[in-house]
Amino acid sequence: MSLESIRYKRGSLEVLDQLLLPLQTKYIKIEGVEDGWKVINKMQVRGAPAIAIIGCLSLAIELLNDNSSDKKVMRQEIEGKLNYLVSARPTAVNIKLAADDLINLANSLSADESVSPEEFKERFIASIEGMLAKDIEDNKAIGRYGCEAILKSLEGDGLVRVLTHCNTGSLATAEYGTALGVIRSLHAAKRLEHVYCTETRPYNQGARLTAYELVHEKIPATLIVDSMVAALMHVRNIGAVVVGADRVAANGDTANKIGTYQIAIVAKYHNVPFYVAAPFTSIDMNISSGERIKIEERPENEMTHIGDRRIAAPGINCWNPSFDITPASLITGIITEKGVFLPETLKTLFAQ
Amino acid sequence: MSLESIRYKRGSLEVLDQLLLPLQTKYIKIEGVEDGWKVINKMQVRGAPAIAIIGCLSLAIELLNDNSSDKKVMRQEIEGKLNYLVSARPTAVNIKLAADDLINLANSLSADESVSPEEFKERFIASIEGMLAKDIEDNKAIGRYGCEAILKSLEGDGLVRVLTHCNTGSLATAEYGTALGVIRSLHAAKRLEHVYCTETRPYNQGARLTAYELVHEKIPATLIVDSMVAALMHVRNIGAVVVGADRVAANGDTANKIGTYQIAIVAKYHNVPFYVAAPFTSIDMNISSGERIKIEERPENEMTHIGDRRIAAPGINCWNPSFDITPASLITGIITEKGVFLPETLKTLFAQ
Repeated sequence: MSLESIRYKRGSLEVLDQLLLPLQTKYIKIEGVEDGWKVINKMQVRGAPAIAIIGCLSLAIELLNDNSSDKKVMRQEIEGKLNYLVSARPTAVNIKLAADDLINLANSLSADESVSPEEFKERFIASIEGMLAKDIEDNKAIGRYGCEAILKSLEGDGLVRVLTHCNTGSLATAEYGTALGVIRSLHAAKRLEHVYCTETRPYNQGARLTAYELVHEKIPATLIVDSMVAALMHVRNIGAVVVGADRVAANGDTANKIGTYQIAIVAKYHNVPFYVAAPFTSIDMNISSGERIKIEERPENEMTHIGDRRIAAPGINCWNPSFDITPASLITGIITEKGVFLPETLKTLFAQ
Repeated sequence: MSLESIRYKRGSLEVLDQLLLPLQTKYIKIEGVEDGWKVINKMQVRGAPAIAIIGCLSLAIELLNDNSSDKKVMRQEIEGKLNYLVSARPTAVNIKLAADDLINLANSLSADESVSPEEFKERFIASIEGMLAKDIEDNKAIGRYGCEAILKSLEGDGLVRVLTHCNTGSLATAEYGTALGVIRSLHAAKRLEHVYCTETRPYNQGARLTAYELVHEKIPATLIVDSMVAALMHVRNIGAVVVGADRVAANGDTANKIGTYQIAIVAKYHNVPFYVAAPFTSIDMNISSGERIKIEERPENEMTHIGDRRIAAPGINCWNPSFDITPASLITGIITEKGVFLPETLKTLFAQ
């Protein structure tokens, strides 16, 4: 049974506080968009798909308690609140695309005179609720396609060792996961020998969250620090790397957790296939290449401290970009809910 | 003024406890080889040159208080104690080579009938004391040669940005440092624009020790986590990487702190020169290639805990090799106290 990172039923939303994991399991009650913005910005929830779903669900909660009966006012409030939610983490694209879709929906419901204010509200909330089910369904498809692609590249019907970075599992999505969904599918197909997960400094999403999910699911796994990837590939036969994405540009360049670019270079050097697993909502055709993706820089104390404990020499400067860009040339394939694509084919795909 | 990691005068040895840095500055009194073994094994002191010097000095302290007047017994005790000291950290070669030299010295002093027991003791202790001065002198030469080589590869007389890994400064040597000695020389020559140092998980020697030395010396510096090297090379113009070595094999393959191999691959991808700075005592002509170097694996709790605080999910397995091997093909040059050499020329050099 997957970890439950989002507990939602109409009118009630709770999210698992990922900053307290793995030591404490505590849910935070979300009463509206302000709470939603806070849990995203403070990284109590993270992962591009989860950010989009939780942000939008926080709006659904707020709308349900809103007694407004003026559709124009509702439309305006929705647009303002969605823009506010998008501002909580600038690099993840999913919430931006979801917000655009929802603003379009609000516009058309508002313009359609046959729709009553109650129906507006009902249909708008139902549309947000649909994102939850769709995310799980999409992740399962990503898992199937990714499993297929990785097994196809193996000789014979042996087992495969896979490496992943950061956290892309149940905790980063509504359930199942993207890159971790692929690993889950390999395990379910009894073709996974072992998974290696990186610690993922400075926020340790790998050590805290991915390791937690892997232990929870009893998937054979080993933790390494981020600098061990090359040594691991040299001594163990790693069959594939699979990572998630915060935003994929039109040319296939991919923004993901800091360290992804480095792993891709090291994988190329060792001839290990390197896959990005991401739903179509992570692909941003409005951005032509990775160089144009804005990279969030986070505070220095995320690097210099673990909790209250200082781990770096006082007085040292830090550079703390949260993401980096992996060029399309280092990516073997992008695993989506519609199949696995070469990065350079995305443009044609979207044009169709 | 460099940090004082070793305080020695005849009969008295104190070493700086590097596990407590940067938060506490505390010296540990070493009364003999058992204390020496412990500070090396517990990593209260580290760095291949410092391990050799401190190990041998702990023997000098013990010998001074030894009232034996039988040269054969002394010779036997010396050999046993040196072998014991070498066992504290298996990957560093310097202490092994120093032990071999000292055992040879003890054999010849013991065999020479004109040497009294007192003279045996005096000459043996003086020989160990000579290692301290020689290490500082060698490091200064390494600094000069490394500075020269890096500046030669620059166009014009501009400033250079350099990246280093782990700690190779005053704290890893008797004083001045190897790779950090090169950086010190660049800074003294007013040709260093900036140095980037990696955190160096899991023991954080970069964040704790190198950052501490750089702040102490007012060298312009920025800390990054280990997974940021590729992103840094993409956005900043890095002129060279310079790292230390725990052991260099006859073919130029180099064992150094885990993560070095990964940085070398990433440097190659970005066409950044990659230098290893090490005294001749780190070169082991008895080992033909890196594949034959024994890699120490350290306990899991170094990865799962920071002090008493657990940072990884309970129940996860860990892999914790302390070193990796960088193949000679990724090394631009080996900076020694006798000049900078291509890795493939070491064999001819030693044959001469």
